[in-house]
Amino acid sequence: VKENHGGDTRNLPVDAVINLDHGDPTMYESYWRKVGDECTFVIKGFESLSYFSNPNNPCWFLEPKLEEAIKNLHGAVGNAVTDGYSIIVGTGSSQLLQAVLFAVTTPLEHASQINVVSPAPYYSSYPEIVDLVKSGLYKWAGDAHEFEKDEPYIELVTSPNNPSGVIRGSVVNREGGVLIHDLAYYWPQYTPITSSLDFDIMLFTASKCTGHAGSRVGWALVKDKEVAKKMTKFMEVNTIGVSKEPQLRVAKILQVIADRCKRFGSPEGDDFFEYNKNLLTERWEILRETVKKTQMFTLPKYPLQHCNYTGDVTQAHPAFAWMKCKEGIEDCEKLFRNHKILTRSGRRFGSDPGFVRVSMVGRDEEFKLFIDRLSMI
Amino acid sequence: VKENHGGDTRNLPVDAVINLDHGDPTMYESYWRKVGDECTFVIKGFESLSYFSNPNNPCWFLEPKLEEAIKNLHGAVGNAVTDGYSIIVGTGSSQLLQAVLFAVTTPLEHASQINVVSPAPYYSSYPEIVDLVKSGLYKWAGDAHEFEKDEPYIELVTSPNNPSGVIRGSVVNREGGVLIHDLAYYWPQYTPITSSLDFDIMLFTASKCTGHAGSRVGWALVKDKEVAKKMTKFMEVNTIGVSKEPQLRVAKILQVIADRCKRFGSPEGDDFFEYNKNLLTERWEILRETVKKTQMFTLPKYPLQHCNYTGDVTQAHPAFAWMKCKEGIEDCEKLFRNHKILTRSGRRFGSDPGFVRVSMVGRDEEFKLFIDRLSMI
Repeated sequence: VKENHGGDTRNLPVDAVINLDHGDPTMYESYWRKVGDECTFVIKGFESLSYFSNPNNPCWFLEPKLEEAIKNLHGAVGNAVTDGYSIIVGTGSSQLLQAVLFAVTTPLEHASQINVVSPAPYYSSYPEIVDLVKSGLYKWAGDAHEFEKDEPYIELVTSPNNPSGVIRGSVVNREGGVLIHDLAYYWPQYTPITSSLDFDIMLFTASKCTGHAGSRVGWALVKDKEVAKKMTKFMEVNTIGVSKEPQLRVAKILQVIADRCKRFGSPEGDDFFEYNKNLLTERWEILRETVKKTQMFTLPKYPLQHCNYTGDVTQAHPAFAWMKCKEGIEDCEKLFRNHKILTRSGRRFGSDPGFVRVSMVGRDEEFKLFIDRLSMI
Repeated sequence: VKENHGGDTRNLPVDAVINLDHGDPTMYESYWRKVGDECTFVIKGFESLSYFSNPNNPCWFLEPKLEEAIKNLHGAVGNAVTDGYSIIVGTGSSQLLQAVLFAVTTPLEHASQINVVSPAPYYSSYPEIVDLVKSGLYKWAGDAHEFEKDEPYIELVTSPNNPSGVIRGSVVNREGGVLIHDLAYYWPQYTPITSSLDFDIMLFTASKCTGHAGSRVGWALVKDKEVAKKMTKFMEVNTIGVSKEPQLRVAKILQVIADRCKRFGSPEGDDFFEYNKNLLTERWEILRETVKKTQMFTLPKYPLQHCNYTGDVTQAHPAFAWMKCKEGIEDCEKLFRNHKILTRSGRRFGSDPGFVRVSMVGRDEEFKLFIDRLSMI
């Protein structure tokens, strides 16, 4: 097997197993190849030896350039407010989710662990993340729709949702609840941007914004300074901060995207979001057409909405297809597996095995093979 | 304040507060400046987008080049065996310590949490790391010397020890114990290398080996494949692996060090360990002389031993000075603080406030100011 720095077209054999289980965002390679040297990152052997990025920031391990680029990008896109927020960087947004859980449950003032819920279908990693080391501070309590206890709770609001791509609000809506907004997919290539969000705790990640999943850079926008301080403490103890190289590299990449924002219609495809939205739109059209022909599956429908970023009325083109098998097929994941397509079963999302989640952000070659096989099911 | 990528001499004012509380290894900048472009790391915008580094390795997020460089370096130095070991990469070695705790305590077959102990003085972060989210799997149980319970336990063996610099073995030595060897400082610049270690679980980190603390790259050498697999699982859930950029950069740096190993006595100071051992030897000589003059403090004595790497008979020159105030001074950390020197109190290491830990691996300028002030106490 060749080393994979993302640069290789693999020339998959016709009968290769296609892995669409993970949302590995290799689709974005084509854009970054086009950009060329402007995004090349260089660091000398003696640079960034220190643990510290900025001793004057309570989040002392956040690179100032990354902080600035995050603010610039949200400003240029208009998807989230950053004024008055603390920014905490994480090794991806899963680590930040754990930092938030720690921050909002310490010091423990409750007799028992705080319930963590999310409405099904929810991101399959949430239960694993929450219960990993059987924390005495919090525990996974399942589907938010079924949460009936009169106890404090934390609700994870994933919007657009992973796996289903729909825009969501909180569902429990009782006193004593803490909301964590996981906004990994709230970017114009996936969904219409309808407002600049200003929730108390918002999580983002480079993985799904720019496609640099290998860099493991996420960030949290946090209103409450005490919560931000405790999150920083978690990051200090868990990993003594976040690697500098990916922070500096992602800073450069976010800034390039921000600088090119709203350069619509350039023949060079300058605007990152326009270019990748076009790729996703095309894939979704092909998928919907194929699904229509097979009459075996259904796909979610997304409303037409005005996107403040593009200025167009458009529907969502999510990073995942949340596919439902027609009646009578009980195990959709198995059906796909028999056709050498790896997907993630609806069961993993607290939902029905009649559903699967299929990545839409892989390489072209994989997507084409997927469509070929799908059309023959 | 200037941005700190490690490159700046700061021209500290004479009355500046000197922070020797952390072991921020900025001393190593001088070597890496001398090396120059050979260690410059370059990555293009489209590279390493994927979550995956090597789908064929059970540790799928470990960059093959890093794995190779780790093996080469241990081979060239002779401080640890790698044949027959699984290598797990982590975001620094603290994360790997947590991965080990998870791996050796799941599935939980015990009624209560497993005790984690280490002989005092122990690394001040251990209690914090172990009890961070009040895991139901394990709990901090303090000084290993005082561990009397007839229960399963995990012992952290730090050798050379942080803070005291001494070579250690396990102390509890009962059945049902798991040993984790934290070997962050087992490199020739700090201590004579007397054998190639082959413990079941060994932790290392670039921070203390090469000085690249900002990169957050650690590695574990693990004999048991099941333990390695569970550690990988922990890393998957905690941070979905480890950032690629610092892995690839550290791979390059470790390989440069390995290639220059045992080039002793070159006028260019080619050998990384020789060069930095010389720096530390000089600092320790100055420190011991100053301490002798003041008659206020004592320092540990280290035995003369044959170092298999250098071929010399030498004593240790640890990354920290573990200083004891003379009788009558109860709070050594306060004494230093009054002279604008930040150190870490012995209390933090489960020891006596008559002790402090002082970093010996900061910049020259800081070390000189420290010595100036120490001589005037």
